[in-house]
Amino acid sequence: MRVLVLHGPNLNLLGTREPEVYGTMTLDDVDARIRERAAELGMEVESAQSNGEGELIDRIQGARGTFDAIVINPGGYSHTSVAIRDAIAGVGLPAIEVHLSNPSAREDFRKVDVVAGACRGVVAGFGWRSYVMALEALAIPPAAG
Amino acid sequence: MRVLVLHGPNLNLLGTREPEVYGTMTLDDVDARIRERAAELGMEVESAQSNGEGELIDRIQGARGTFDAIVINPGGYSHTSVAIRDAIAGVGLPAIEVHLSNPSAREDFRKVDVVAGACRGVVAGFGWRSYVMALEALAIPPAAG
Amino acid sequence: MRVLVLHGPNLNLLGTREPEVYGTMTLDDVDARIRERAAELGMEVESAQSNGEGELIDRIQGARGTFDAIVINPGGYSHTSVAIRDAIAGVGLPAIEVHLSNPSAREDFRKVDVVAGACRGVVAGFGWRSYVMALEALAIPPAAG
Amino acid sequence: MRVLVLHGPNLNLLGTREPEVYGTMTLDDVDARIRERAAELGMEVESAQSNGEGELIDRIQGARGTFDAIVINPGGYSHTSVAIRDAIAGVGLPAIEVHLSNPSAREDFRKVDVVAGACRGVVAGFGWRSYVMALEALAIPPAAG
Amino acid sequence: MRVLVLHGPNLNLLGTREPEVYGTMTLDDVDARIRERAAELGMEVESAQSNGEGELIDRIQGARGTFDAIVINPGGYSHTSVAIRDAIAGVGLPAIEVHLSNPSAREDFRKVDVVAGACRGVVAGFGWRSYVMALEALAIPPAAG
Amino acid sequence: MRVLVLHGPNLNLLGTREPEVYGTMTLDDVDARIRERAAELGMEVESAQSNGEGELIDRIQGARGTFDAIVINPGGYSHTSVAIRDAIAGVGLPAIEVHLSNPSAREDFRKVDVVAGACRGVVAGFGWRSYVMALEALAIPPAAG
Amino acid sequence: MRVLVLHGPNLNLLGTREPEVYGTMTLDDVDARIRERAAELGMEVESAQSNGEGELIDRIQGARGTFDAIVINPGGYSHTSVAIRDAIAGVGLPAIEVHLSNPSAREDFRKVDVVAGACRGVVAGFGWRSYVMALEALAIPPAAG
Amino acid sequence: MRVLVLHGPNLNLLGTREPEVYGTMTLDDVDARIRERAAELGMEVESAQSNGEGELIDRIQGARGTFDAIVINPGGYSHTSVAIRDAIAGVGLPAIEVHLSNPSAREDFRKVDVVAGACRGVVAGFGWRSYVMALEALAIPPAAG
Amino acid sequence: MRVLVLHGPNLNLLGTREPEVYGTMTLDDVDARIRERAAELGMEVESAQSNGEGELIDRIQGARGTFDAIVINPGGYSHTSVAIRDAIAGVGLPAIEVHLSNPSAREDFRKVDVVAGACRGVVAGFGWRSYVMALEALAIPPAAG
Amino acid sequence: MRVLVLHGPNLNLLGTREPEVYGTMTLDDVDARIRERAAELGMEVESAQSNGEGELIDRIQGARGTFDAIVINPGGYSHTSVAIRDAIAGVGLPAIEVHLSNPSAREDFRKVDVVAGACRGVVAGFGWRSYVMALEALAIPPAAG
Amino acid sequence: MRVLVLHGPNLNLLGTREPEVYGTMTLDDVDARIRERAAELGMEVESAQSNGEGELIDRIQGARGTFDAIVINPGGYSHTSVAIRDAIAGVGLPAIEVHLSNPSAREDFRKVDVVAGACRGVVAGFGWRSYVMALEALAIPPAAG
Amino acid sequence: MRVLVLHGPNLNLLGTREPEVYGTMTLDDVDARIRERAAELGMEVESAQSNGEGELIDRIQGARGTFDAIVINPGGYSHTSVAIRDAIAGVGLPAIEVHLSNPSAREDFRKVDVVAGACRGVVAGFGWRSYVMALEALAIPPAAG
Repeated sequence: MRVLVLHGPNLNLLGTREPEVYGTMTLDDVDARIRERAAELGMEVESAQSNGEGELIDRIQGARGTFDAIVINPGGYSHTSVAIRDAIAGVGLPAIEVHLSNPSAREDFRKVDVVAGACRGVVAGFGWRSYVMALEALAIPPAAG
Repeated sequence: MRVLVLHGPNLNLLGTREPEVYGTMTLDDVDARIRERAAELGMEVESAQSNGEGELIDRIQGARGTFDAIVINPGGYSHTSVAIRDAIAGVGLPAIEVHLSNPSAREDFRKVDVVAGACRGVVAGFGWRSYVMALEALAIPPAAG
Repeated sequence: MRVLVLHGPNLNLLGTREPEVYGTMTLDDVDARIRERAAELGMEVESAQSNGEGELIDRIQGARGTFDAIVINPGGYSHTSVAIRDAIAGVGLPAIEVHLSNPSAREDFRKVDVVAGACRGVVAGFGWRSYVMALEALAIPPAAG
Repeated sequence: MRVLVLHGPNLNLLGTREPEVYGTMTLDDVDARIRERAAELGMEVESAQSNGEGELIDRIQGARGTFDAIVINPGGYSHTSVAIRDAIAGVGLPAIEVHLSNPSAREDFRKVDVVAGACRGVVAGFGWRSYVMALEALAIPPAAG
Repeated sequence: MRVLVLHGPNLNLLGTREPEVYGTMTLDDVDARIRERAAELGMEVESAQSNGEGELIDRIQGARGTFDAIVINPGGYSHTSVAIRDAIAGVGLPAIEVHLSNPSAREDFRKVDVVAGACRGVVAGFGWRSYVMALEALAIPPAAG
Repeated sequence: MRVLVLHGPNLNLLGTREPEVYGTMTLDDVDARIRERAAELGMEVESAQSNGEGELIDRIQGARGTFDAIVINPGGYSHTSVAIRDAIAGVGLPAIEVHLSNPSAREDFRKVDVVAGACRGVVAGFGWRSYVMALEALAIPPAAG
Repeated sequence: MRVLVLHGPNLNLLGTREPEVYGTMTLDDVDARIRERAAELGMEVESAQSNGEGELIDRIQGARGTFDAIVINPGGYSHTSVAIRDAIAGVGLPAIEVHLSNPSAREDFRKVDVVAGACRGVVAGFGWRSYVMALEALAIPPAAG
Repeated sequence: MRVLVLHGPNLNLLGTREPEVYGTMTLDDVDARIRERAAELGMEVESAQSNGEGELIDRIQGARGTFDAIVINPGGYSHTSVAIRDAIAGVGLPAIEVHLSNPSAREDFRKVDVVAGACRGVVAGFGWRSYVMALEALAIPPAAG
Repeated sequence: MRVLVLHGPNLNLLGTREPEVYGTMTLDDVDARIRERAAELGMEVESAQSNGEGELIDRIQGARGTFDAIVINPGGYSHTSVAIRDAIAGVGLPAIEVHLSNPSAREDFRKVDVVAGACRGVVAGFGWRSYVMALEALAIPPAAG
Repeated sequence: MRVLVLHGPNLNLLGTREPEVYGTMTLDDVDARIRERAAELGMEVESAQSNGEGELIDRIQGARGTFDAIVINPGGYSHTSVAIRDAIAGVGLPAIEVHLSNPSAREDFRKVDVVAGACRGVVAGFGWRSYVMALEALAIPPAAG
Repeated sequence: MRVLVLHGPNLNLLGTREPEVYGTMTLDDVDARIRERAAELGMEVESAQSNGEGELIDRIQGARGTFDAIVINPGGYSHTSVAIRDAIAGVGLPAIEVHLSNPSAREDFRKVDVVAGACRGVVAGFGWRSYVMALEALAIPPAAG
Repeated sequence: MRVLVLHGPNLNLLGTREPEVYGTMTLDDVDARIRERAAELGMEVESAQSNGEGELIDRIQGARGTFDAIVINPGGYSHTSVAIRDAIAGVGLPAIEVHLSNPSAREDFRKVDVVAGACRGVVAGFGWRSYVMALEALAIPPAAG
């Protein structure tokens, strides 16, 4: 199983941005954990980060044929992007939305999630482990369900 | 008359994305139809697709001096993009918003249209023909009205 | 193909009502254009105007068996009439909603459209040509799509 | 000055309908008062009542060329009818909206008034005198202002 | 007891309109059931259908003096018609609102009911039996309560 | 046919609670009427009352295998209980929501009904007869429709 | 009959403030017209203007025992002042709300009227004549109704 | 680490309730999976199900001193229960909210989540695995983060 | 005078739950204060706590005949429970709603109070003294007012 | 302890204003009760009434250095006055909001309370006793809590 | 150029009111800074503070003929005062709204600004410097733009 | 002090786009003014314009370590971009939002500002001077405050 991991806007600031909310690990640290766990699970994984809505959509579209699933943290675009939602629905790959923090415990404008409706599931509030948990969810074959 | 045809986010997926909603023609097929009809109407037409809000704005701005009108399918940006609306109002070219499907018959969040208010008119629900109809609307000189 | 063209409330004022918004052609002028284009397209067309919501529904219902499609400008009823929406859904004929002006560029209360959700598509903002464009959309057989 | 007085839905019930709200005078009594005061003011007045939104619009449209002004009690249509609003704006005659009772002192759904925005003014809460006050407002030539 | 049964807009399409929602009986079939049950209950019943809001109001008003109660299916007008609500309140006859389907299980815009507040009760979701149940509710004298 | 009749919160106060709204019959009186009518219809009926949302859900769930249908008056839970709605949808038995009074004629917060969307139909405003009418609706086999 | 005429905030600017909306008469001119008409009607009238919500309330309260009725133009306070509404309800004198312009034809925030619900009626849109019409409404004894 | 697993309303229907949404495993099957995985993780786990809001609160409160963490699927109470939210905040144990399905992809009323704001994180959309993923999130000591 | 004091959900956590919001006294301490003050006032008082909405309703209903008044802290149910509101209205005993903290100074979802409308008054923000103040309000005979 | 008691708009009408809502005691009577109870509690108290928002703010500001606490009935300003809220927060004295009646049991526009969020607590619905209860709440030293 | 500087409600508390939000300078300090900068700019400036909405309006109106521009900090009235907005529009002088803090970063109710729409511009978030920046904006002649 | 000046979408159209709203200066003219004033203030300034949300975020992030502050005109993104807001909060540099025109005086959808909450302050309505005023605000050391 090949998985595309997409980090949305401002996740490249990880480790320096509001550490009391997001912790002190950098995005490279997070990607290392993701790769490590992917290896254990026998998955191929590729990570990418972009601050651009259009580039995230390009990445999602490009996943078709190359990847079997998508793990995406849409960051601030979660709350407004119909276009990212449409991209996920359009490529037809299973996608899981992840968040480092728990949006339900933050400002009201973070409680609307436009993107999640096109995803299979959501994992939020576990820091870098949100990504790993999403990988694990993808790794276990449905037959085990 | 030179017309810029802009395809917004995810329209490059056409033919593969949710065919029960959007049909099986590809964007190239659609562009061929557009060029064919434009030729009949004596129009020059140039098509471009982008998933990026900023790139669509760049294209709209670049139309000034080069094109006489714009036909735009803003896709998912229709529902939120004040910036695309401002770009259309800013370049001062007549613009027509088109949609393949009829947003009024879909999810509630597709019923708010921020961009349309800056356009001369809207054509929605006729698949690739929405584009051709928009060309025809531009082709007939106002004097015929 | 036989098409019923329905003009809703106040369209009989055309040519005199707020000409800066709706232009100077009368409804008879518009109907002449519609008939002319219908003839070219090999369509039979019948036009009717009514200010009454119930009469418009009567007309829509009466179209079954007599007409193959409906082109309707619901005027002010577009924004509130569940009953016209139900009539269109009920007769099961393809219907296209048209508007002379672009409601998205006018008052806020013209931005809600209850009727459009039961139609195949919408053409708005092209004056009398909105009707003609709707006819053309109906004329081209789906097989061409 | 010729004035058309339009009584909207349910005003023909006057005198019997909820007399604790609307009083015991019949609509004929009200029309007699209106005619009497119109005569004193040197106005020609014609009254009509209809329960139908379309018929009220027909009447409003028919006023052009025959009447100089309209006094209308849109009754329950006040709160929803974009079409009556458009008719008033379309005929271009000065119109005054009247109400027997004071909608602001009743149910919440009577506090939205779609029609009033197309009228010159509103007189509400004075029973049959609301009509007479509207006539008087029309009778005094603007030059007196 | 004499009862007026009023069928609102599009109910004349019954049997052909969206049969998966409304069933295959025609309105005549429904009226036959109503008459049959009315006869058993010793009631006189008269049925009428209209697509017009104003005509429904005319019918409601005309019931006074002729009928003892009203059973009304306001169809699409249920959700917007202050005027029908006022007519029911105005004639002072007991009225029961009925629906063939259950509006609570359909689109959101069918969940607002303006008319019901002026009725004694509501019966919804039982097809033609909604009407018969309403008759039975009227038939049993209050003294039995 | 075996029917479970569920009385929600405060219905045990019947006969004493706000008699001007709910009448003077006690819940036992109501249940007597229900049993009497059920007997005539050849139904087995069991009544239960609970003030607890969870207990009502327990009862609904327990109906599977024991009852063929449910008649439920969710009282104040009608307006907020997603959990009762889910229980009704979950057990898969036909359910009818009943109300003694007509919520549409009361406070605004009684006009939202979360539970009704999972029911086959609604009967409201007929006092204890609302229950009996629901039984009758269940009693008549669909084949009669 | 003694009538207190209260002019709310910014009415002292009359004649200079936005004359395209409010005309060129000064408040003294308006008061002269009011006095003139009051004299004809055999009324005693006293006018006062204040920009202060509290002072307007003081005036309203002070009217008890001295005046028989109040004519008030609450200006911008119309849309927010619960306290003025309470004062009018509290003194128990008949009050009429007047406006020079028609708030329904202006910005949306002028369409909410908190004060009007405590008044007998409203007269809006007739310039200084709104005041005079209110006086006339008060002058005619109810027995004439 | 001792973990309390709480299943909210209707989860005991699992396997039979709307299997197209929730799958065919029973709650016992789910609990078996949970115990199995807990054992691997060296956790003690206790499961309980209740349809009652109050009983769920009792359980949450009772966890203090006995358990180190809570995994809760509040079912339909997720969308309305301030009291469950307060209970979680009150006991001060880390809690994770889980859902079998993805509420963002269902009805609008499932998109408001009152309880999640008091939880550390949310896992939704993975069937029984949502629970297991939550256990895993709890199992890995923060020091690993 | 016999008074039932009802503590709603999570009040049994008092002294340990979020002490920075609710203080360090336990519910037993609070009840001791209540009993002490009741004794001084010559009142009989009985306290009960429940986390269950239904049990609180049972208690409220059971107060009739046994108690003369109710003091209730509905906790998180204050914001949503129509059923508790109905219970209070139904038993017809004077009830006072109390809160330890001041909901107006907390999250937005604590500013809607469904229960308070059925109570005689509200005392909020004084910790355990809110209860005592409510007792005192009940103790002083109306004749003293 | 020195306490400033502030009566907001229309409280000077007490005893005459809507006695069915507010009772027959005058404000002087209320102030006498307040002084009487203050004396028993060993408090110095000063009462003032104003209909003006600005004057109430002046009074609140003036309390600093002279008073130890404020008891305020903001009347109709409760629902809109950000400025009074800011004044209370600005002077930093403990303040208690009181109401004679229970706003939750009145019109919807009385259910929003802007001022309360800056107060320590609220006492509503006990007539003049609301004031006295507030004094008592202030009198008991926090150490007793 | 003569400029009126108006300080709205609670600004006289400056230096003592919530210093963590508003700083430790007093209003006199601020006015000194304003005068100092005005002198440098060759402006005449007069400052006034009032807690009263009506008095602020009096001041705004009084500026006509005496001042060339207004700098106003409407404080808490920014969010509700239609009357201050009307006063600014009415006097026709250029006005700039200033705020010490940035309302967008505070409570939600500070995000609605009714007054700003009648002003030329807004300066917010720079403490006393907001005033000085507004003066500078007025000082530079438009010809420099 | 080094300052990054960011011009958002469509600002490159300046001088040609809707000159009646935005004036005739080009963006280069504006940048010249900014550089000129920055030189006077002893600031280093760098300007950049982008139509892309992602590129603006890239620029904001890139400012860390290179610039001491940011002046940003987010244009149409002001009203929707959570991602730009997060970027500003994430880099931790002081930022000032500027607008050429005054959004409060334009369409309603320009009155919501998502970005401003993460900025120190806002300057709007002064054309190119809004930028210069922001520079000046940054130039004066806090110690002067």
